[in-house]
Amino acid sequence: MIVGGSEDRQHDMRVLTRFVELCGGVERPVAVMTAASEIGDQVFEMYRAAFAELGVTHMTHVHLDSPKEAASEKLLSRIREAKGIFMTGGDQKRLLEMIGGTPIHTEIATAFARGACIAGTSAGASAMSRFMLAEGKAELAPEKGAIRLGEGLGFVERIVIDQHFAQRKRLPRLLSIIAERPDLYGVGIDEDTALLISPGIGMEVIGDGAVTLIDGLNMISNIDELDTGDVPRLIDVRLHLLPAGTRFDAAADEGTRVPPPFQDFFDALIQPEQREPS
Amino acid sequence: MIVGGSEDRQHDMRVLTRFVELCGGVERPVAVMTAASEIGDQVFEMYRAAFAELGVTHMTHVHLDSPKEAASEKLLSRIREAKGIFMTGGDQKRLLEMIGGTPIHTEIATAFARGACIAGTSAGASAMSRFMLAEGKAELAPEKGAIRLGEGLGFVERIVIDQHFAQRKRLPRLLSIIAERPDLYGVGIDEDTALLISPGIGMEVIGDGAVTLIDGLNMISNIDELDTGDVPRLIDVRLHLLPAGTRFDAAADEGTRVPPPFQDFFDALIQPEQREPS
Repeated sequence: MIVGGSEDRQHDMRVLTRFVELCGGVERPVAVMTAASEIGDQVFEMYRAAFAELGVTHMTHVHLDSPKEAASEKLLSRIREAKGIFMTGGDQKRLLEMIGGTPIHTEIATAFARGACIAGTSAGASAMSRFMLAEGKAELAPEKGAIRLGEGLGFVERIVIDQHFAQRKRLPRLLSIIAERPDLYGVGIDEDTALLISPGIGMEVIGDGAVTLIDGLNMISNIDELDTGDVPRLIDVRLHLLPAGTRFDAAADEGTRVPPPFQDFFDALIQPEQREPS
Repeated sequence: MIVGGSEDRQHDMRVLTRFVELCGGVERPVAVMTAASEIGDQVFEMYRAAFAELGVTHMTHVHLDSPKEAASEKLLSRIREAKGIFMTGGDQKRLLEMIGGTPIHTEIATAFARGACIAGTSAGASAMSRFMLAEGKAELAPEKGAIRLGEGLGFVERIVIDQHFAQRKRLPRLLSIIAERPDLYGVGIDEDTALLISPGIGMEVIGDGAVTLIDGLNMISNIDELDTGDVPRLIDVRLHLLPAGTRFDAAADEGTRVPPPFQDFFDALIQPEQREPS
């Protein structure tokens, strides 16, 4: 469950409610991972209150201020026991510095493989894919060299994720990445909105906004001829806009069949080649 | 020459300089049409000063506060004598109310046909095509029914134009139109940027920013099933981003050949079926 940030935590809580359902209900243990943030206790308290409001009875907090803590048996057992892991916002680089390649990372991957619901919001969302938008911005137009990609957690292989997408007008930033890495698919998720991926099964958009998907596979660009900071010419970028309520299933019945021009993207979303965390 | 608004009028004046060149040089008469604005005198003075700075020697002002003035022989002769007509910003609906279907409209179309340079900026840009974005907005996502199209001046047939495009983040608004009218091509022009169309010959982007082109010809959407205000699902929208410096020619040499996925759009831009103003 990849959440675009600022999901409602006080009123309808549609995104968090669905997360709890996917964990198997309010009695299943939820681990809240706050390592992306420097104020983990405050962030945990916010989610603890929201999940308690939804009736969740068993919440644990997983926070690290140093990668050394990533071997802590106490923290590892919290992930091992969780039916859902919710990774909060903050800074995705901090999250990767704390847990990337550590036993905690492995433990989350193991949880994912056994069917636990792995959710990430904002920075936690960006970190979900193998290729993570680490830093940089492009405000009015895509720019060569504007964005640095880093190593993410690797739960999805071929996509790169941006969040707060419509609210922070991040299409130029996502296009900056796709211009340089047309082998990746761009996924932009609005606030209070989640892209739900069930590996091998299907995908769904829930919440308040939409998910914008950018496919540069057929793109013709002049990026190789440009200097850093130049705006690339991009011809034939494919854009898909999927508002909340959209659902596509691999085993499709009439209503949720994947439209042919979206098939390759869909396959990239739901059939990641699983990869060991490095 | 379709200008995205806020073209520089004091420093490099790249867009205005090119306009003067296209008129045939500083000694050719330029008519400044301010009917989109309620403060025509002030707007004219601003352009008069800018064109004077560029060395233009002969400028006339064409302004109307009522459609009745559109039969004025004095105004008609100013257009008749002009080698370039520059339509300023304001409100495109006002411009069309003043001159749409009037002798002035006919006179501008005649000037266009004889090869005068017709330029429009901001509201003047929106008015250039047959289908004009008359009013409405969509801030975060495209919405069904958000935008009302009106009748424009008809110098280009199959496109709909939006301006101040990157600066005012108007992609959702342009997508709102294309979602409902996939037979039209969407053209979004940044500030201080112009799309130059030479009918039958080619196109060029000049100035500071880029032109974003939206092609919904192959789009799959659910717009027909939606209520007003709903966000449509859009699959396979084609997006082209052409930064300043881009030039494509119909009679192509190596450097400016039209990329095949852009050919249909290019043809729509440069080969409008000429249409009599109604």
